Amino acid sequence: MAPLAVHGSPFSTATMRVLACLYEKELDFDFVPVDMSAGEHKKEAFLSLNPFGQVPAFKDDDLTLFESRAITMYIAHEHHEKGTPLIFQESKKMAIVSVWKEVESCQFDPAASKIIWESLFKPKFGMTADDKVVEESEAKLARVLDVYEARLSKSLYLAGESFTLADLHHLPAIHYLLETPSKKLFDSRPVFSAWVRCVTNRPAWSKVTDMQKN
Amino acid sequence: MAPLAVHGSPFSTATMRVLACLYEKELDFDFVPVDMSAGEHKKEAFLSLNPFGQVPAFKDDDLTLFESRAITMYIAHEHHEKGTPLIFQESKKMAIVSVWKEVESCQFDPAASKIIWESLFKPKFGMTADDKVVEESEAKLARVLDVYEARLSKSLYLAGESFTLADLHHLPAIHYLLETPSKKLFDSRPVFSAWVRCVTNRPAWSKVTDMQKN
Repeated sequence: MAPLAVHGSPFSTATMRVLACLYEKELDFDFVPVDMSAGEHKKEAFLSLNPFGQVPAFKDDDLTLFESRAITMYIAHEHHEKGTPLIFQESKKMAIVSVWKEVESCQFDPAASKIIWESLFKPKFGMTADDKVVEESEAKLARVLDVYEARLSKSLYLAGESFTLADLHHLPAIHYLLETPSKKLFDSRPVFSAWVRCVTNRPAWSKVTDMQKN
Repeated sequence: MAPLAVHGSPFSTATMRVLACLYEKELDFDFVPVDMSAGEHKKEAFLSLNPFGQVPAFKDDDLTLFESRAITMYIAHEHHEKGTPLIFQESKKMAIVSVWKEVESCQFDPAASKIIWESLFKPKFGMTADDKVVEESEAKLARVLDVYEARLSKSLYLAGESFTLADLHHLPAIHYLLETPSKKLFDSRPVFSAWVRCVTNRPAWSKVTDMQKN
């Protein structure tokens, strides 16, 4: 059987999300770099894997998937017996994981991604950050983090007492937010900050960030 | 056992998504209206159900959920033997449902929601639509719909040959887009338009839109 393969960039948040999942599950996989600076993700070879032209794409034998959060769900279900569980089999416990996965995707990520683009990537690409967008996004993210602060005061992780996909999905954006002035939003929320230290300290996550150093 | 309960508004897209799921699954439930014009969703009683202050919230006995797409997943799994299946038990088939659920949430909905807000709800609330936002969002939605046109030329529904949550999640935004000038984006895509007619014609969906008439 062909090995699992991730086509992406170790600097893309969506790719990092899938890599974190694979390392947590202790699965062997091939990493196929997609040169985004050369526009490879918009060329036919990659578009045949993901018609939206966004990294990552994922292959498991004859199955091709895209959308990072769909890929992690597949990996967590298909390999539930390996590595960190990441999901629950019991439907009510799994429903809570789903809630906080959706919160990440619909509440946390839109604000976080705008800040990361404006404060971190635009300057790297020689563009100027739009301070108004940063300010508005920080206000939105602050309201979201207030809910997280309350939530994490009641349970160790977002979906209960163990680390799940709901926590894991946040890691790439948190990694980059920590490199921006907006990390002040973390510093003023001690319980959230403790969770950030806990989840970013996982060995599987270090393997992802190490891939950025090669 | 207490019945299932949806707290929301029949005009909110997220509430409509959950209602569509309950009707497809032929489940009995209580509908608890939340008066958003009176700001009920931002008051303590509702915030205890959803700390983000957004409709809907969902109760199943002592389980409280929010985020519409997490609620539909729970309902589809918990009641898999009732009504329309909506999900697959086989992990590779379910992975394809997950991909197109994520496409709805991350590609289709952001553009669609902006158009609906600008072209439909702002005028209803006496505000003026921002034509530039509509134009940019239409361009984004057009690119997404090009992928749908190709996809639906290969399979009857987004995730294969049967109607699933991936299709269902689109219904509320499609319902409102059809009331805007942006429906021209549908008219120019015959395969997508045929799918729109097929999915909006489902009896369960008529029950949702009927709730707007009461």
